[in-house]
Amino acid sequence: MDISAYMTTLGERARVASRILAATSTGQKNAALHAVAQAIEDGRASLLQANATDLEAGQHLDSALRDRLTLNDARIQGMADGIRQIAGLPDPIGAINQLNYRPSGIQVGRMRVPLGVIGIIYESRPNVTADAAALCLKSGNATILRGGSEAAHSNQAIAACIQAGLEEAGLPRTAVQVVKTTDREAVGHLVRDKEHVDVIVPRGGKGLIEFVSREATVPVIKHLDGICHVYIDDRADWDKALGIAINAKTHRYGVCNAMETLLIARDAVSHVLPELARRYREAGVELRGCAETCGHLADIGAASAADWDTEYLAPILSIRIVDGLEQAIEHINTHSSQHTDAIVTEDFSRARRFLSAVDSSSVMVNASTRFADGFEYGLGAEIGISTDKIHARGPVGLEGLTSEKYVVLGDGHIRE
Amino acid sequence: MDISAYMTTLGERARVASRILAATSTGQKNAALHAVAQAIEDGRASLLQANATDLEAGQHLDSALRDRLTLNDARIQGMADGIRQIAGLPDPIGAINQLNYRPSGIQVGRMRVPLGVIGIIYESRPNVTADAAALCLKSGNATILRGGSEAAHSNQAIAACIQAGLEEAGLPRTAVQVVKTTDREAVGHLVRDKEHVDVIVPRGGKGLIEFVSREATVPVIKHLDGICHVYIDDRADWDKALGIAINAKTHRYGVCNAMETLLIARDAVSHVLPELARRYREAGVELRGCAETCGHLADIGAASAADWDTEYLAPILSIRIVDGLEQAIEHINTHSSQHTDAIVTEDFSRARRFLSAVDSSSVMVNASTRFADGFEYGLGAEIGISTDKIHARGPVGLEGLTSEKYVVLGDGHIRE
Repeated sequence: MDISAYMTTLGERARVASRILAATSTGQKNAALHAVAQAIEDGRASLLQANATDLEAGQHLDSALRDRLTLNDARIQGMADGIRQIAGLPDPIGAINQLNYRPSGIQVGRMRVPLGVIGIIYESRPNVTADAAALCLKSGNATILRGGSEAAHSNQAIAACIQAGLEEAGLPRTAVQVVKTTDREAVGHLVRDKEHVDVIVPRGGKGLIEFVSREATVPVIKHLDGICHVYIDDRADWDKALGIAINAKTHRYGVCNAMETLLIARDAVSHVLPELARRYREAGVELRGCAETCGHLADIGAASAADWDTEYLAPILSIRIVDGLEQAIEHINTHSSQHTDAIVTEDFSRARRFLSAVDSSSVMVNASTRFADGFEYGLGAEIGISTDKIHARGPVGLEGLTSEKYVVLGDGHIRE
Repeated sequence: MDISAYMTTLGERARVASRILAATSTGQKNAALHAVAQAIEDGRASLLQANATDLEAGQHLDSALRDRLTLNDARIQGMADGIRQIAGLPDPIGAINQLNYRPSGIQVGRMRVPLGVIGIIYESRPNVTADAAALCLKSGNATILRGGSEAAHSNQAIAACIQAGLEEAGLPRTAVQVVKTTDREAVGHLVRDKEHVDVIVPRGGKGLIEFVSREATVPVIKHLDGICHVYIDDRADWDKALGIAINAKTHRYGVCNAMETLLIARDAVSHVLPELARRYREAGVELRGCAETCGHLADIGAASAADWDTEYLAPILSIRIVDGLEQAIEHINTHSSQHTDAIVTEDFSRARRFLSAVDSSSVMVNASTRFADGFEYGLGAEIGISTDKIHARGPVGLEGLTSEKYVVLGDGHIRE
């Protein structure tokens, strides 16, 4: 198979489809999404069969990976429900903002438009196929999906349902294409095909994201690390501090918006550290402290330099005692992955300073880092959380898959 | 000189300065801009002297290049005035938009923040040094400037004025740094330094832009081509059509928003083409037509396939007769550089269709493409016109040099 020719063909078809999607009405896009959801429900048997083939071929995979790979009735229903939810979201496309008259007499405004063609590169969860395709479709973009080889049959079966739904609604089947080869060269081609692909969204483990970032010349919306901090100020409400510090670490461990490092102002230590240590121990969280923290808690390990830059994604927490607000900001801006960082304080000016000075995609006052999420933020759905600064930052919903163009309205106006 | 170590040092200093600038008040940034403008006025003698050194070394340059390189009293005054204008613009930084309560009780909003460190790579115009530095400073970004080697002395002299102004206003001199080596390796380093540089803005000829796009791993805000179209519909007001088609081509030739291809609906040809041809001839514009156009105008040359994809930047115009609106849209979406394209029509539905279907950074109805400009659009100033879709599209003003982060305000909220 000539991978390069094959991928170019996918790209050309996607580009043609993208022009049709860009001008497709909200009603027709929603009808297509409902048809896709119905096709997924109706196709349950074939989806389970395709998934069984993948699971059989993947008997060597570890149990976590096999779990992510597995489809069942509930997960298939979840995919269909998720697509119907996306159909219910407001359509961002075509909205014209800030249409104002200029001194010359022309009106100038900004119209929200699709990006065009979006390449999604993901790993073992087959439900990403449906989820990502639906978000791209709603935002008027064509999609080229490249899933993990271990989910190849499941992804093709889901794609068949999506394409049946598109066809039923009178939209081109090429609006959503799944790459049919598992050759890695296909990924390399996709991320460098500037002519046919407008943005790449990688979803998966760190290895995948790093590979894509390194190879891509097409712009990438990505989420790399989630090294999130909570800083407990000495003017915090102690109950709020305890609640947030426990929630941010123990609510879920394997998620990007979990706290990985806790910073405590020296004057707050006696009010919160003993109780926090007790509760973390109870929850089975391993603590690693700075020298001063270890002085307070005899039974914990010392944090190494590497700990401050580590995303544990596990029941481990590093703790550092700082002089106060400024040292906390300094620590965060040095070690944070610019994902989500929070302060707990009742002091108005310190809250204001923290909000302004911390350079992360989500900055919080008196709230758990676990809230950093497209659903919690009211985006309705998210394609991912961006730790980049360009284009889209933080949870990326439909709007992150769009751009704006200028519209200019005149009455025969010429430039003097 | 160890270029890599030198550039890394510049990057590290810029990163540190960027954190300070991000938290600098509007008043202090404006004071710095006024101090810079004053320093440029006061430094006129040294600027002229440095420029004379560059001009002497550049005696082999052609006259257009020498003209761009030349500083004189009026141009120096222009730089100072431009900086004061930027001081007078509203500060985008810190504005919080859409701060709303969510069902969980948290408030979520978006705060406008600087990108961080911006690398500007430009060619022979020394005034870009002042202009770009001022826009970046106002938007709270640190800047690393890399100008053309032929303007090296002029750029260093301007940089000295800028740094004197920064210092006077209590800001770090490293907020604006000019690369002191003319080795091209420095550019290669800058455009790949993801750790210290957040975005690259290349300003100059096509060769420079293409080089930067090809080499960069840092995101690039760029303007490549300006192949702009005017489509005269058969329901156009003929006077408006003549005015716009003449203005878009002949107002200035060497600019990116000049029309390069004129599309005329077949039923409009007899109403506009003879008069347009007469006026273009009068203005000295060379016409190149499709076969049908050549049938109407015996004395013009035939357009080759390459003409439809060429940015002339000169008194040359290609003309194609089309069936009507849909063929015009098809031609534009195939051949346009997605910069600026206009329709002339009195038909409401066709105007609406054109606005929605043409995928360019500026789409116009009954207005000359020459309006595509940051000043005309009310941005106050522009760092360039982006033909990309990601992040910033069309004229890029202060807002294009910023990003948004989420701010979350709670009262001890935890995720259930």
